[in-house]
Amino acid sequence: MNRLKLRAMLGTFFEEDLGFGDLTSESIFTEKDFGYGVFIAKDDGVFCGVEVIKQGFSLLNESVSIDLHLKDGDNVKKGEKIATIEGPVIHLLAGERVILNLVQRMSGIATLTKRAVTMANSTHTKICDTRKTTPGLRLLEKYAVTCGGGYNHRFGLYDAVMIKDNHIAASGGIGEAVQKVREKLGHTVKIEVETETMEDVIAAVKAKADIIMFDNRTPEEIIRFKELVPKGIITEASGGITIENIASYARTEVDYISLGLLTHSVKALDISFNIEV
Amino acid sequence: MNRLKLRAMLGTFFEEDLGFGDLTSESIFTEKDFGYGVFIAKDDGVFCGVEVIKQGFSLLNESVSIDLHLKDGDNVKKGEKIATIEGPVIHLLAGERVILNLVQRMSGIATLTKRAVTMANSTHTKICDTRKTTPGLRLLEKYAVTCGGGYNHRFGLYDAVMIKDNHIAASGGIGEAVQKVREKLGHTVKIEVETETMEDVIAAVKAKADIIMFDNRTPEEIIRFKELVPKGIITEASGGITIENIASYARTEVDYISLGLLTHSVKALDISFNIEV
Amino acid sequence: MNRLKLRAMLGTFFEEDLGFGDLTSESIFTEKDFGYGVFIAKDDGVFCGVEVIKQGFSLLNESVSIDLHLKDGDNVKKGEKIATIEGPVIHLLAGERVILNLVQRMSGIATLTKRAVTMANSTHTKICDTRKTTPGLRLLEKYAVTCGGGYNHRFGLYDAVMIKDNHIAASGGIGEAVQKVREKLGHTVKIEVETETMEDVIAAVKAKADIIMFDNRTPEEIIRFKELVPKGIITEASGGITIENIASYARTEVDYISLGLLTHSVKALDISFNIEV
Amino acid sequence: MNRLKLRAMLGTFFEEDLGFGDLTSESIFTEKDFGYGVFIAKDDGVFCGVEVIKQGFSLLNESVSIDLHLKDGDNVKKGEKIATIEGPVIHLLAGERVILNLVQRMSGIATLTKRAVTMANSTHTKICDTRKTTPGLRLLEKYAVTCGGGYNHRFGLYDAVMIKDNHIAASGGIGEAVQKVREKLGHTVKIEVETETMEDVIAAVKAKADIIMFDNRTPEEIIRFKELVPKGIITEASGGITIENIASYARTEVDYISLGLLTHSVKALDISFNIEV
Amino acid sequence: MNRLKLRAMLGTFFEEDLGFGDLTSESIFTEKDFGYGVFIAKDDGVFCGVEVIKQGFSLLNESVSIDLHLKDGDNVKKGEKIATIEGPVIHLLAGERVILNLVQRMSGIATLTKRAVTMANSTHTKICDTRKTTPGLRLLEKYAVTCGGGYNHRFGLYDAVMIKDNHIAASGGIGEAVQKVREKLGHTVKIEVETETMEDVIAAVKAKADIIMFDNRTPEEIIRFKELVPKGIITEASGGITIENIASYARTEVDYISLGLLTHSVKALDISFNIEV
Amino acid sequence: MNRLKLRAMLGTFFEEDLGFGDLTSESIFTEKDFGYGVFIAKDDGVFCGVEVIKQGFSLLNESVSIDLHLKDGDNVKKGEKIATIEGPVIHLLAGERVILNLVQRMSGIATLTKRAVTMANSTHTKICDTRKTTPGLRLLEKYAVTCGGGYNHRFGLYDAVMIKDNHIAASGGIGEAVQKVREKLGHTVKIEVETETMEDVIAAVKAKADIIMFDNRTPEEIIRFKELVPKGIITEASGGITIENIASYARTEVDYISLGLLTHSVKALDISFNIEV
Repeated sequence: MNRLKLRAMLGTFFEEDLGFGDLTSESIFTEKDFGYGVFIAKDDGVFCGVEVIKQGFSLLNESVSIDLHLKDGDNVKKGEKIATIEGPVIHLLAGERVILNLVQRMSGIATLTKRAVTMANSTHTKICDTRKTTPGLRLLEKYAVTCGGGYNHRFGLYDAVMIKDNHIAASGGIGEAVQKVREKLGHTVKIEVETETMEDVIAAVKAKADIIMFDNRTPEEIIRFKELVPKGIITEASGGITIENIASYARTEVDYISLGLLTHSVKALDISFNIEV
Repeated sequence: MNRLKLRAMLGTFFEEDLGFGDLTSESIFTEKDFGYGVFIAKDDGVFCGVEVIKQGFSLLNESVSIDLHLKDGDNVKKGEKIATIEGPVIHLLAGERVILNLVQRMSGIATLTKRAVTMANSTHTKICDTRKTTPGLRLLEKYAVTCGGGYNHRFGLYDAVMIKDNHIAASGGIGEAVQKVREKLGHTVKIEVETETMEDVIAAVKAKADIIMFDNRTPEEIIRFKELVPKGIITEASGGITIENIASYARTEVDYISLGLLTHSVKALDISFNIEV
Repeated sequence: MNRLKLRAMLGTFFEEDLGFGDLTSESIFTEKDFGYGVFIAKDDGVFCGVEVIKQGFSLLNESVSIDLHLKDGDNVKKGEKIATIEGPVIHLLAGERVILNLVQRMSGIATLTKRAVTMANSTHTKICDTRKTTPGLRLLEKYAVTCGGGYNHRFGLYDAVMIKDNHIAASGGIGEAVQKVREKLGHTVKIEVETETMEDVIAAVKAKADIIMFDNRTPEEIIRFKELVPKGIITEASGGITIENIASYARTEVDYISLGLLTHSVKALDISFNIEV
Repeated sequence: MNRLKLRAMLGTFFEEDLGFGDLTSESIFTEKDFGYGVFIAKDDGVFCGVEVIKQGFSLLNESVSIDLHLKDGDNVKKGEKIATIEGPVIHLLAGERVILNLVQRMSGIATLTKRAVTMANSTHTKICDTRKTTPGLRLLEKYAVTCGGGYNHRFGLYDAVMIKDNHIAASGGIGEAVQKVREKLGHTVKIEVETETMEDVIAAVKAKADIIMFDNRTPEEIIRFKELVPKGIITEASGGITIENIASYARTEVDYISLGLLTHSVKALDISFNIEV
Repeated sequence: MNRLKLRAMLGTFFEEDLGFGDLTSESIFTEKDFGYGVFIAKDDGVFCGVEVIKQGFSLLNESVSIDLHLKDGDNVKKGEKIATIEGPVIHLLAGERVILNLVQRMSGIATLTKRAVTMANSTHTKICDTRKTTPGLRLLEKYAVTCGGGYNHRFGLYDAVMIKDNHIAASGGIGEAVQKVREKLGHTVKIEVETETMEDVIAAVKAKADIIMFDNRTPEEIIRFKELVPKGIITEASGGITIENIASYARTEVDYISLGLLTHSVKALDISFNIEV
Repeated sequence: MNRLKLRAMLGTFFEEDLGFGDLTSESIFTEKDFGYGVFIAKDDGVFCGVEVIKQGFSLLNESVSIDLHLKDGDNVKKGEKIATIEGPVIHLLAGERVILNLVQRMSGIATLTKRAVTMANSTHTKICDTRKTTPGLRLLEKYAVTCGGGYNHRFGLYDAVMIKDNHIAASGGIGEAVQKVREKLGHTVKIEVETETMEDVIAAVKAKADIIMFDNRTPEEIIRFKELVPKGIITEASGGITIENIASYARTEVDYISLGLLTHSVKALDISFNIEV
């Protein structure tokens, strides 16, 4: 993870919460009032957020010392200590809300991803994310997915090609669309094609797409579609897949299942930060 | 809402998704390929996001025309058209994901807030938010709460005082903490005190706090605590309140219930953006 | 004071003065030429600027050592040493002008505020500032007011409500304007109403404004207006008040006098920075 | 004046005052409530601020129309209309304070400069500013000096050389310091030397400085010093010069008098902005 | 190309050249002095820079009208008109240097790329760029390569994998390195391996690398290496290839030749901008 | 050189190359894998880039240690070590490309400048640069010119006046143009006039320009033009001067030769960075 970028992001987030300053704490504490705070899990899950805690508090004050008891991706039990922070209490309180908001969300994503990955465990299918992330937090949310055992789909519109219905319609067909893209782009870019019918799949195979996505198909359709795809082309299922039905999709042995829900409507993992002055 | 700030935020979000450009669409479309896109609700709820749609597309391209069929806060039914956008299809596709991610989240917050507000409807209790918002999105999420009929608690550490356990412990008591704050801060700032016991409430009343919050109390406790609070001091219940038990809290006729869940673990409202070239 | 914000501000100010570099000093000194500099008051007053000196020089060069002989708010006599700085002389010279400009201005504000506060000393009236600050320097100027014994009025349009003539006219009256605002805003925001007549005051009292401001009234009018205001509502006098007549306003025992002049047309306190190589 | 820079500055200033939004006006007005506002001088002086008014309001809202009745540098009489603005009242109110703060300050600088220039009128001496400007506002304050008939000294440490006591001491003399600088810098940069004694002046002349400044000298000393300076080298008086004694300095026929007071402790020109909805 | 990003870049570049303003032109022209300027090729080549001209001048002043006589990638002859710009002369002069610097460089890159492409014309080998671009200009320089008929290699460290000697050494072999990367990264990322020996190539083939690069090999070596690579894996030659020897490399029928020189030591295409007031 | 500015520039450049992170290295190395890297010249030349190496790596990671074996401006031989860097290999690899791109370019400029300076060695003529620098890199490129023994012409449109044909035409003559500028600008700004004919030179002399540039003239013309210019006015030759003909221009003993080619179409000095894990 690009640490310069993370620090810039954290700077923006602290600005949002702190504005010109913390009215309450600055009225009561001075820089010389030291304290310590402990992050404690209030629920079971997968922890994620080491760099947010480290860079966050160190950005606010260089004298804060940080002791992490867990690594990203570690399971955490309700009541378990995650990290201990010592320093001027005024900075512990200044960082508390932003850092908790991020760590809870990232741990929530890692936890949910782990759950999805576990559902697909007995198959070779891998779980990956989408671009349905929170605007401004993609770096952190995609990282959290990997901490839960998932994989990252493309990071944006700029690092892989995804040919969708509008592109196909405007080009006159899947073959034509792939052709147009290939004429313009270099060899380091993968080309993925969304398909909805067997004809689509056949066209995408013929066009030598790198990845063929089965969009909003049932497990049964996917099994049939997959048979049309030669080894060497990666298959992906997407759309309409939930925690409940993921196992049935995984049983199709599709290579990847991409899940918007991993980052889209996240239930944060409950984590508290208890400060003692 | 400060529009300059919103445009700066949207610029950051587009940068995150677009990077150096949209590999796929820029290979297939030119600036001269026009199309239109329709935002359609895929579920019932409360719509919120007018300014995001307007400023978002206009930031990408000034020639895009935008026709809104709903106002912020309007109820929306599954299948209902929200807005129609016309312009170069390359810009419709460039803006699609970021704008959808925001509008779905904002509408999800408005919808959930409306539900919470409805639960408290027969009482005089108002519903408000907290600082448990998504870092970087507080402006939009707090706005969405108001579109669902809720109210905004303080925006950050800078626009109201909230005296919590650490402040009280360090000051030697609630009275002393309020006193310290009052000596430093001007008359335009409200002072809220978190209380957990009747002694706390009595101390906060004596200190003439503007707002007394009952932190993690049962409805029964709140009823008893409220009796200690004279008219003119605002009461607020917070902590441990869910959509399920909110009605029982509202029946205490506490003035405000603050709900972290409104923004904390939001289920996005399903909205699609269908583009025709 | 939010230190991240202060450092960002200082970065902008150094950029303004330094541009691509200091033509003179970089031609004559190297990083290895050390020196020390002493801030000395050239006039009596109240000192303010500790954080500007500390963050300013440390931003330019981490090896600069800073020894402060005074705290913010301390009285300073002509000829008294304020702070001693040691480090590469090239960085002392680079920071000199920007830091002096800020510290002189902040100390000027603190000094003037102290004078105003002293004028009102025998009354319970407090002195506060306004939004008539220098664009870009509000954080520092409002802080300087507190160092002189004054209080801060709202920081901007976003942290308290001030209902003025245009708002009243457009709403159809003071009661209606307060009502409109109250329907939209949460309970952590104070509402202040500007009044010019007894009718205005009566309407503001009836509307339960948190603060009633007497705008451009004589001390005599204020005494009469104040009698209409019940305990529990804060009173404020504003407009037409100068250092010369402030005592007569304070004798009205109005709660607050807000003074644009504290930050508006500041006479900087004369401070020099003498560098020895 | 670099307009891109001005717009960026105004964006920062509006952010400071507006934060997430104008609580009062956004509760009462909608985008559809139009109004107009008139800038009116409340005192006599020299007006300066055309671009601030134009760029300021247009940044907030593109539909605002702006009618200027004066040009920068025009004399203005108490009661005279300066500009009329029409547009959504919510944006007039949002821009009011920042724009007034700037225009009052700029007009104050222009007015004071005009006064200084007038004092030197019967001589060939020109009045110029210094780097004692408000951090963050140098662009506008230096511009205001020119609108009052003054001239700009260097903009920062980067666009001209000023050799001061520390540089001289470290180099071993004025000649050596000029030499060092000349060896490093190109021919487009002017070299100014601060002098305090006749020996200094002689050395500076010998070193072929472009500009010789007489630092903190009496008019009598300046007359004697000037005689040592051949035509072709510009002379400048600086330090200890006030509005009161400026005429006596000008009578020395020194080429330039540089005055920190023009921008250092400015009395803003009183200007009001009256809005009618 | 992301236009928001381009405009932000141009803003930075204008700031670098304009600083607080154009001393000369602002002393001589007003906003009302109109003129027109013509971009003319002073040498034969391939033109590239449409968006820089359009966005550049429109950023400086919205009333400038721009008439492009060529498209990106068009051949241009010495003396041929490229574009005609009309508007306030002050803005034409303000934009001239920055825009020329960019357009000359971009056209130089397109021209050189076209030359390289032509050298490889009778083969199926494609020409691509590297990351050896000018810091801060990668977006524009990579775009210019495509206008000359070349292709883009990865944009940065973030959009494709390149396994080099350090990665291989630390992992214990090519196979292990590919394996490590594949375990962490999703399916939308291509993996390229640098090879220097036949053993390397065999290992990379076995590891199913997407792209195998022959690093600093002679054409003869490449022919032998290529025979080890099955269809479906892309081959790339890199290192030690110049305009002079490119044809001999292309005759190996390697899929791609990547050329640092396209962007590394560019000879700008001579283009002038003649302004008439 | 303003180090705050340099660090901001480097931050932008790393962001361009690193994006969200280094896919390859972050998959293979952890923060705990240390290594060292050596910058080695692959060709003879003049080295330039100390601050880029120091600030670049320290920005990425504070624990990186940097050992410079050369100073800026030192001659370097093929095979010579320039600097040794030790630290987490992940950060050495992250910084490699950006820092190399800059150091190679800066050293290329210093090397070329040295060559030009040497060509003029037996004369008193000095070599200087122009504004034909790479947008975004002017600070570094102009610095590199000085490391090769050259001098800097103005940094931008803001720090010296250059009166060109358009200015002259619009003013009605050289005298009028100089006059217009002198009326507006202060005494710290030098005024340069471009001349093409003897009449131009005579007019510029009469107008007391500080610098007279002979634009696109032959050495013979320059010799004749120079005779018209009194001592005290600096002369400059510009336009049509190449490494090949520079000696004949220098023999005219013109004061300065300004060369766009120093920064315009730079051949980077070949430097490698060899990392050992």
